[in-house]
Amino acid sequence: MPPSSSHDEQQIRNLIDAWMQASRSGDLETLMGLMADDVLFLTVGNPPMTRGDFESRFRAMQGKVKIDGSPQIKEITIHGDLALCWLFLDLTITPLNGEVMRRSGDILSSYRRGADGRWRIWRDANLLSS
Amino acid sequence: MPPSSSHDEQQIRNLIDAWMQASRSGDLETLMGLMADDVLFLTVGNPPMTRGDFESRFRAMQGKVKIDGSPQIKEITIHGDLALCWLFLDLTITPLNGEVMRRSGDILSSYRRGADGRWRIWRDANLLSS
Repeated sequence: MPPSSSHDEQQIRNLIDAWMQASRSGDLETLMGLMADDVLFLTVGNPPMTRGDFESRFRAMQGKVKIDGSPQIKEITIHGDLALCWLFLDLTITPLNGEVMRRSGDILSSYRRGADGRWRIWRDANLLSS
Repeated sequence: MPPSSSHDEQQIRNLIDAWMQASRSGDLETLMGLMADDVLFLTVGNPPMTRGDFESRFRAMQGKVKIDGSPQIKEITIHGDLALCWLFLDLTITPLNGEVMRRSGDILSSYRRGADGRWRIWRDANLLSS
């Protein structure tokens, strides 16, 4: 693998780590910086969630739930400024004074490299279930 | 858009049409030719489905159900030999002597161009629900 691909792959791994870390600590500002302006999160039974949708949904849950998870990266494929990542995610969502909920499943997500050279989440298909 | 991109995009649109057409007519051989050897179909609540899994599952249903659907292609993005397509699919599954089942939702799928220059389905995240 050429050094540039391996460097890009490491950047995407760091992005996935940073995403999980910011989700754990409820750091919305960091999360917003990790996604493209025109990001779309696709889930089952809902219309595609935009950047603005993500922000309002996150604010509505902020301080009310604790999120933790361990992503297992299965593969990362990079061509030019487009990357595709398949991972398996085990997620726990713990409401304040509530019972732990577990969700797990595959995630297929795509990343794009912006004009500033940074990779950001762009398209995300979330197949998690209880 | 350079002519090559537009040509590739047309090839991928043709592939999606051919896939739907072969699904309608139960043409397993055509479907197998449209997917990469290491294709993976990701769905909710199941392990990733391989080429072999697809084949056995299709054979088990062959002649027992009619499938029809209309994919609305939302976007196709191509970088080098990797393409990403987001589409919305309305699917009807009609068992012989049974009631029509409807499934709809987003599909995020990735295509790869093989050494023979042909595009094939490679990673597919299926977010359909009833």
